[in-house]
Amino acid sequence: MSTLLQRPVETKLDSLPQLLKALQSRSARVGILGLGYVGMPLALRCSEVGFPVMGFDIDEEKVERLNAGRSDIAHIPSERIVALREAGFEATNDFSRASDVDVLILCVPTPLTRHREPDLSFVISTVESLLPYLRPGHLLSLESTTYPGTTAEEICPRVERTGLRVGEEVFVVYSPEREDPGNAYYDTARIPKVVGGSTPGCRQAGVTFYAQIVETVVPVSSTQVAELTKLLENIHRAVNIGLVNEMKMVADSMGIDIFEVIDAAATKPFGFTPYYPGPGLGGHCIPIDPFYLTWKAREYGVNTRFIELAGEINYSMRNWVVTKLIEALNSVGKALRGSRILVLGVAYKKNLDDLRESPAIEILEKLLARGALADYSDPHVPRFPKLRQHKLDLSSVEVTAASVASYDAVLLLTDHDAFDYELIRRHARLIVDTRGRFRRLDAKVVGA
Amino acid sequence: MSTLLQRPVETKLDSLPQLLKALQSRSARVGILGLGYVGMPLALRCSEVGFPVMGFDIDEEKVERLNAGRSDIAHIPSERIVALREAGFEATNDFSRASDVDVLILCVPTPLTRHREPDLSFVISTVESLLPYLRPGHLLSLESTTYPGTTAEEICPRVERTGLRVGEEVFVVYSPEREDPGNAYYDTARIPKVVGGSTPGCRQAGVTFYAQIVETVVPVSSTQVAELTKLLENIHRAVNIGLVNEMKMVADSMGIDIFEVIDAAATKPFGFTPYYPGPGLGGHCIPIDPFYLTWKAREYGVNTRFIELAGEINYSMRNWVVTKLIEALNSVGKALRGSRILVLGVAYKKNLDDLRESPAIEILEKLLARGALADYSDPHVPRFPKLRQHKLDLSSVEVTAASVASYDAVLLLTDHDAFDYELIRRHARLIVDTRGRFRRLDAKVVGA
Repeated sequence: MSTLLQRPVETKLDSLPQLLKALQSRSARVGILGLGYVGMPLALRCSEVGFPVMGFDIDEEKVERLNAGRSDIAHIPSERIVALREAGFEATNDFSRASDVDVLILCVPTPLTRHREPDLSFVISTVESLLPYLRPGHLLSLESTTYPGTTAEEICPRVERTGLRVGEEVFVVYSPEREDPGNAYYDTARIPKVVGGSTPGCRQAGVTFYAQIVETVVPVSSTQVAELTKLLENIHRAVNIGLVNEMKMVADSMGIDIFEVIDAAATKPFGFTPYYPGPGLGGHCIPIDPFYLTWKAREYGVNTRFIELAGEINYSMRNWVVTKLIEALNSVGKALRGSRILVLGVAYKKNLDDLRESPAIEILEKLLARGALADYSDPHVPRFPKLRQHKLDLSSVEVTAASVASYDAVLLLTDHDAFDYELIRRHARLIVDTRGRFRRLDAKVVGA
Repeated sequence: MSTLLQRPVETKLDSLPQLLKALQSRSARVGILGLGYVGMPLALRCSEVGFPVMGFDIDEEKVERLNAGRSDIAHIPSERIVALREAGFEATNDFSRASDVDVLILCVPTPLTRHREPDLSFVISTVESLLPYLRPGHLLSLESTTYPGTTAEEICPRVERTGLRVGEEVFVVYSPEREDPGNAYYDTARIPKVVGGSTPGCRQAGVTFYAQIVETVVPVSSTQVAELTKLLENIHRAVNIGLVNEMKMVADSMGIDIFEVIDAAATKPFGFTPYYPGPGLGGHCIPIDPFYLTWKAREYGVNTRFIELAGEINYSMRNWVVTKLIEALNSVGKALRGSRILVLGVAYKKNLDDLRESPAIEILEKLLARGALADYSDPHVPRFPKLRQHKLDLSSVEVTAASVASYDAVLLLTDHDAFDYELIRRHARLIVDTRGRFRRLDAKVVGA
């Protein structure tokens, strides 16, 4: 059934003009490596515009699930995977099949090690497993967020070790993913795509490919510029959130509600963009990506002090929130030990089911370690999943008048729209609010 | 001729309902204290909507100039002052005439001392000189940027020392100015105005007054919230500019043009707002206001580390730029001493004539102190004015092919649109560019 097998023999691609033609006609076969939050929307989009698409992943269960037409990403319904399959998509963990496709797009994770250094192992091992199957006419694109120089220093030399010349036989580009899970308007097609090439020919191939699948392509002068562009976007967010978190602590000490201040400042029609404080950063990007630049900058003897400061303050919010909860309980004569606490919202972002790097995990662990009887409620996370470094055997508690009233305090961490805030306000005994959802004038509400 | 004298005796205002009525009918008389960049646009707007307006300033020359119908602010033409005078406006340095007006608006400077502490002397001395003339029915509004607590701790106690009760007889509000000199669209009327009152009655009076002159009034719950709102707006700018200045130094060390990176990141349609680096901060707000919060926070034992870091990095750019110039000259075998340098742009902001806190002043001083033969060119600043702490006896050099070619290097500090960049690029021997106006690919262009 696969359209991949239907290609006539004579269209073998082994030069830039042939590759460009196949990209423009959308007959080039696209391979997506890494079928997660970035790879799957990209696979769907490539297929939607007519490219034959193949997916690669080392996770056998995921490969089987996808081939059976089942999605494991909440905001991608399984019907879309079924349709993708019907259009010829196939998932595989057999990397030798890379020789069957013309475009190789790496969408693998780039986490940090436990010592906060870049962990490129997924990128490197994926590239290494592709090397035996590279051939003239291949377009290789890295989409994973990483430090400036990764493509030039880690990808190109490996490709050239096979004897293939970058820019003449194999075309290498860096084009950062900008997925925003949960953003209904800005989907893959609508988000402009930055593309930097290792050579002008590489860039031409990359721009030609991405122009087929997104409305706006933004060519830049090098892979390094494209790499730093993505980092700057996320550094901007990390620093601005760090700033409002610090401002929250300053305002709190002065008895001022920072959420009222931010909302008032947001009425300025120029020169100000509101960012909101919270219990600390979560997700796979903002807490992690900035430190890729920090690590690389050390090589040049320069510092990234805003990144370090934002990291420190954003991370410290977890302790600050726990302390505010302890003080709120103390003000009514209770210790945290033995108190019943209901944590509201554990996903890292509102209205999502994603727990990656969510500060709620560590806050729950801290509460339990201090002897609190802690539960959580999250309409998007019915049961706590198994996580690499954490083990919490908890299920979501339903929010009802009776359940809310049975806790000594509720602690709002993620302000999902699905929560019934009026019911919570009416029945909770004490509310510790990290999101500014409750009016501070209410005596039982404490800002945190 | 003054409409101020035409008020019938029976409309004496001595209660909140009477004040509100006079504000709504725009018959209340408005006194503006401090006739500078903030006070004059406000005086013009109040008069425009029909209020009788009187201006107060301690600067006798300014008072005479204004009464003669002459403006001393570049973006306010003298015709507007003539029209203001014809509508009944009068400037005076006689503060006893405060008893002739009903609304007192303080638009005086709030600078820093040389030890970077708040200098409230203009606010305090203005309030002190008003005290003998305060009477029931006065609305007093402070618009100067300041730390949270100023109105409650410095204004209200002084007012009450006269025996008048705040909120019953005298109505005190804080409403921060948000003027953006050079912004053609967002003028006084279009910029939403935040108002916090010392009591609900104060707030009602303040909101009623400002609703007459601006399209949108944003009432907040206290003067402290309004004070912190304005600081947050400017802290946000100072920190974001500090961040891109640090990113510029990091990118520079890696051979990456930060301006290309920022422009590429700016294509992201959500979650990113571009800020641009430069030779350091200038103007009366951004380099100064944030430290008002730093100072106040110490009282509460909390730190404002983002503000300190932004201040340090933004200030350090001046030295960084000088070092880049020295290195650029060195690369062509020249020392700074004895080299002819043309500084392009000395105003703190493009297309303005304002030199306040401009980094160009200190950079010029540093160049001269190191033996450079430095000149400047600025179409908006024909001659260097006398400044409080600086004395530079320089006049603007015309930018021509011959003049530009006669310098060893040109140093672009303020990228006014009036400059002929193509002519400069063609004829300059060496260009050190702090604004990203010149393409880095040109061999004689050095980013700084």
